[in-house]
Amino acid sequence: MNKHCRIDVAQGVMTIWNCNAGQRNALTPEYYAGINAGLERATNDAAIHAVVLAGEGGFFCSGGNLNALKLRRELSMPDRRAKVDELHAIILGIRACPKPVIAAVEGGAAGAGLSLAMACDLIVAGESAKFTLAYVKAGLTPDGGASYALMQAMPRATVARMALLGTPVAAARMYALGAISDLVADDAVLGHARDLALKLGAGPEQAIANIKSLLNAAETSDLESHLIAERDAVCDALGGDEGAEGIAAFLDKRKPVFR
Amino acid sequence: MNKHCRIDVAQGVMTIWNCNAGQRNALTPEYYAGINAGLERATNDAAIHAVVLAGEGGFFCSGGNLNALKLRRELSMPDRRAKVDELHAIILGIRACPKPVIAAVEGGAAGAGLSLAMACDLIVAGESAKFTLAYVKAGLTPDGGASYALMQAMPRATVARMALLGTPVAAARMYALGAISDLVADDAVLGHARDLALKLGAGPEQAIANIKSLLNAAETSDLESHLIAERDAVCDALGGDEGAEGIAAFLDKRKPVFR
Amino acid sequence: MNKHCRIDVAQGVMTIWNCNAGQRNALTPEYYAGINAGLERATNDAAIHAVVLAGEGGFFCSGGNLNALKLRRELSMPDRRAKVDELHAIILGIRACPKPVIAAVEGGAAGAGLSLAMACDLIVAGESAKFTLAYVKAGLTPDGGASYALMQAMPRATVARMALLGTPVAAARMYALGAISDLVADDAVLGHARDLALKLGAGPEQAIANIKSLLNAAETSDLESHLIAERDAVCDALGGDEGAEGIAAFLDKRKPVFR
Repeated sequence: MNKHCRIDVAQGVMTIWNCNAGQRNALTPEYYAGINAGLERATNDAAIHAVVLAGEGGFFCSGGNLNALKLRRELSMPDRRAKVDELHAIILGIRACPKPVIAAVEGGAAGAGLSLAMACDLIVAGESAKFTLAYVKAGLTPDGGASYALMQAMPRATVARMALLGTPVAAARMYALGAISDLVADDAVLGHARDLALKLGAGPEQAIANIKSLLNAAETSDLESHLIAERDAVCDALGGDEGAEGIAAFLDKRKPVFR
Repeated sequence: MNKHCRIDVAQGVMTIWNCNAGQRNALTPEYYAGINAGLERATNDAAIHAVVLAGEGGFFCSGGNLNALKLRRELSMPDRRAKVDELHAIILGIRACPKPVIAAVEGGAAGAGLSLAMACDLIVAGESAKFTLAYVKAGLTPDGGASYALMQAMPRATVARMALLGTPVAAARMYALGAISDLVADDAVLGHARDLALKLGAGPEQAIANIKSLLNAAETSDLESHLIAERDAVCDALGGDEGAEGIAAFLDKRKPVFR
Repeated sequence: MNKHCRIDVAQGVMTIWNCNAGQRNALTPEYYAGINAGLERATNDAAIHAVVLAGEGGFFCSGGNLNALKLRRELSMPDRRAKVDELHAIILGIRACPKPVIAAVEGGAAGAGLSLAMACDLIVAGESAKFTLAYVKAGLTPDGGASYALMQAMPRATVARMALLGTPVAAARMYALGAISDLVADDAVLGHARDLALKLGAGPEQAIANIKSLLNAAETSDLESHLIAERDAVCDALGGDEGAEGIAAFLDKRKPVFR
């Protein structure tokens, strides 16, 4: 697609590659353009059922490019904010995408790369991967929603350890805390992420999109309001084609065919 | 009580049994009627100190009956919603019940059965029990508050794994994440749940009810507001009979007698 | 400082000692006065970079003094509430302090002592330490924010186990759940807490204060609002001296000098 972003589509699975391996896939304007275009296509193209975010060269994403960040000092505050808003639009785009998005974390995810991983619905990591929120070491504070997503996922003391000291956290620890969904051998990360994407791709499109919305809503809702949201969604599903097929297949003891 | 719900009371502990073992205790109108009546009695009867939810035949609850769900398609939307609201009233009833409610999960809890378990204050499970949120396999979306309770209990990626793929989660994993309170041998589930209920039953009724309210409130409160709620509750307790007995017993180095 | 509170300052690290070892460091008016003064000094004195809370005699803090609580019965309700508000001001003071606060938990933290520990940014505990929320055993309900902080940190069933039954939780379990940040040998607690404080003390003061604010805000914010807070903080940091030094040091492959 461009020099820092490549998009593959196979069997309904879109893989968006960060192709900046020489800089451990630090974020670039080219990658932003690519992932934005990819998420937009995934949102609108019925032939795309799931998205995998991956990095070339064995590392997921090391976050901001420090040379680029140095130049941001020279920008006016509105221009500086606009740059960060570009990242944040991607984070919100991953969440808003009706198709599930899977992070395939080889090697590690650091800084805004961790933000990117944590924004995904499923997070697959290799056993030797590390998750690092070391903005503090550069005199900076987190962006990309990492300080929100981690606080939702983990107790405050564990997040504070990561955010105030910048200590890397091993994939096994992230998995023990439930913060990532899948821990696999280092050489199995991409294959496993694709397998999950294929399984999701065989599932019911509307139900999956609605479940994703329910999980998003649960972060700020209360039980009573959420019960209403669940009720409305399941009543729609009960009357829809996917529910009809799913229930019929279950009663017939056969696999449902949703797509 | 009826063909699908039996209620035992012994030593202040009410056990509400789902008696639909032939269908792995799928939910029925009879069970709804029974659990509603049980919770109402537990709420109002001073002789009931704690409630255990259990399933006959070695399985906690498999959730909705698929044949019944199939028929819901034929209902008008208001009637369909009313059916789901019946389940939701039970979930809210468990939360609002001033007596602690313990889920005794033998075998597994699936779908709305998982919602039912997650609504309880304590969750005891046997080592081979599985927790499953597989609405997606039937083309449906969660109800009973499962997508809220799990998001409160676990990181989003772990919930998404359960909700988007329907993969069962073993009791040991749920316990490692803290999502269930007690993991015991399969044949010890009911005994352990009753032991916990008896211990709770010997505790201070008003304090226990107020603690339960504080935990409910903490889900949507902020620290400052919650400190006020805690302050008001503890100041009431300090002036009440339970506090007097509890403090006196502590100072006398004897066991308090609350009931 | 006074008979129940001693304050050391060395290398920019303030250690506030609870000196009531004969009562397992139960809370006293003298300790409240001391910790308040310490937190105020830490907040305003640029030479203080981090705070450690510790207890003399091998136990962190056992919470309220039961003899004192007994006397509270005799107080009017406004006076009783004022007493609890004194504790709550300390909890809010720890959170609001721009310098990181580390709990060094030897032996255990119980009742309001657990509240105090949970209010800290990092929580270091020795392997044999126990965390206990046993107000219920005295016919009371939690204060000091414990029922909020634990609900933020752990699934409801695990918190309910602690709060309704008063069962102690081992440090290793707390660490497995991520509720404490550091688990070390019993005789290494104070040294480890001081090492962390020294590391934090070498970090960027403003960034650390802002990260702490972001973590506080994340508890009640939503993703979109939090992204704006993160954006504004990181844009300030990018234009500030700490960011300039941190980025320059990174690009020069040297250690940054923030203080």
